[in-house]
Amino acid sequence: MTLYLIGIGLSDEKDITLRGLETVRRCEKVYLESYTSKMSCSVSDLEKLYGKKVIIADRDMVEKNAEKTILKEAKTKDVALLVMGDSMSATTHVDLVLRARKAGIKVEIIHNASIMNAVGDTGLELYKFGKTTSIPFPEKSYEPETAYEVIKGNNKIGLHTLILLDVKPKQGMFMRVNEAIEILLKIEQKRKEDVFTEDTLCIGCARTGFEDAIIKSGNAKELLDVDFGEPPHCLIIPGKLHFMEEEALKIALFS
Amino acid sequence: MTLYLIGIGLSDEKDITLRGLETVRRCEKVYLESYTSKMSCSVSDLEKLYGKKVIIADRDMVEKNAEKTILKEAKTKDVALLVMGDSMSATTHVDLVLRARKAGIKVEIIHNASIMNAVGDTGLELYKFGKTTSIPFPEKSYEPETAYEVIKGNNKIGLHTLILLDVKPKQGMFMRVNEAIEILLKIEQKRKEDVFTEDTLCIGCARTGFEDAIIKSGNAKELLDVDFGEPPHCLIIPGKLHFMEEEALKIALFS
Repeated sequence: MTLYLIGIGLSDEKDITLRGLETVRRCEKVYLESYTSKMSCSVSDLEKLYGKKVIIADRDMVEKNAEKTILKEAKTKDVALLVMGDSMSATTHVDLVLRARKAGIKVEIIHNASIMNAVGDTGLELYKFGKTTSIPFPEKSYEPETAYEVIKGNNKIGLHTLILLDVKPKQGMFMRVNEAIEILLKIEQKRKEDVFTEDTLCIGCARTGFEDAIIKSGNAKELLDVDFGEPPHCLIIPGKLHFMEEEALKIALFS
Repeated sequence: MTLYLIGIGLSDEKDITLRGLETVRRCEKVYLESYTSKMSCSVSDLEKLYGKKVIIADRDMVEKNAEKTILKEAKTKDVALLVMGDSMSATTHVDLVLRARKAGIKVEIIHNASIMNAVGDTGLELYKFGKTTSIPFPEKSYEPETAYEVIKGNNKIGLHTLILLDVKPKQGMFMRVNEAIEILLKIEQKRKEDVFTEDTLCIGCARTGFEDAIIKSGNAKELLDVDFGEPPHCLIIPGKLHFMEEEALKIALFS
């Protein structure tokens, strides 16, 4: 039988593809990966459309215990793992496919749009994004400077940086654009390499791909005070801008 | 009224999202951008699903004459422009949205998966791709070395390079992986900067996102002789590989 990794898009139940929907309806077991983002619909909206019970899969279930649940079942049944956004964009999914293949399980991927597509709504060219990075919630002994490093590296060759912001849905924690900017400014204070200052041009995005999405550009200091509203948020640090990109940012294509 | 840019995904008519389908069915005029890629279904397959006549829009219509056709109509009607893959990933779409906004036309974007998602099937981390580039069919006075430059730049910071290959659907011309490798080797012969040699690890992808997709990795010399079959093709030059990426390439996740 087959394990299907199905991207369900960014906003609500209607973002699934027809292929995805037909496949979910055919599967005996349907899991939803719950720990990577947040959509504007509820699990019961999904269940209503699919006509299926949707089982919430947390990080442990997908990353540690898949052999006892999802992968075990996929040996004898058609099983769907629904992923918010696209189904093959994070390391955890590559890892799951590897484990499935080693266990002799057939895997099929059904793609969808992810945040990496939806940031195209800013007017920035997707072809000119460099490495994507993320900012985790700071913890006592864990305040990584990875995002700062990645911006610096992408800057070297003029590329834009997409920064994904930490989410902890179980605790209701979703990092806001403002927090991310604060963290980056704090790293700058320490490193003083002029990579991310109060004058750095930033683009804050909230609910990208949703109907009430917000995209706002300005320097870091200005965006610190903007209320972007509900999650999920992400932050973009543009590299070298083409005049068309500048124009798109100026007129703010979708607001 | 509204201009809808709707991504219809990579493979066939079933890759459209439910939101996309409902929108197309509501629009008075439906255009299909015809010059960027190739799907596995026909225009009449699309028409059958949508219950709508689909008008083929070539590059001139979208890039030069939109004011006389698509944009003019969108002032008084709901108009859909269908785009293979995602709807906001190329410069031409940003430009069209800018022009629509200047003409006071409302624009809505419905995203979908593009080749930039589907290359996740290789097992390479999407977060570690750098700038995306393309290789055009060589012409007498036009043999750009852009792709070579981009590989070089991405290499500097360890990132993967996705290279999109030229398509000229009107002439039935779709660049193959083999041709792309030949072109890059020719540039290397001239530049001698050791950016792309016969030993360079490459990943050739054909019909990515289709049911009969092929993903094959090997050095440039090996891939020169591989028959990847029908278009569309693309080529990836990996940067620094994580062990999980190496493993994924070794066992070839989907073949």
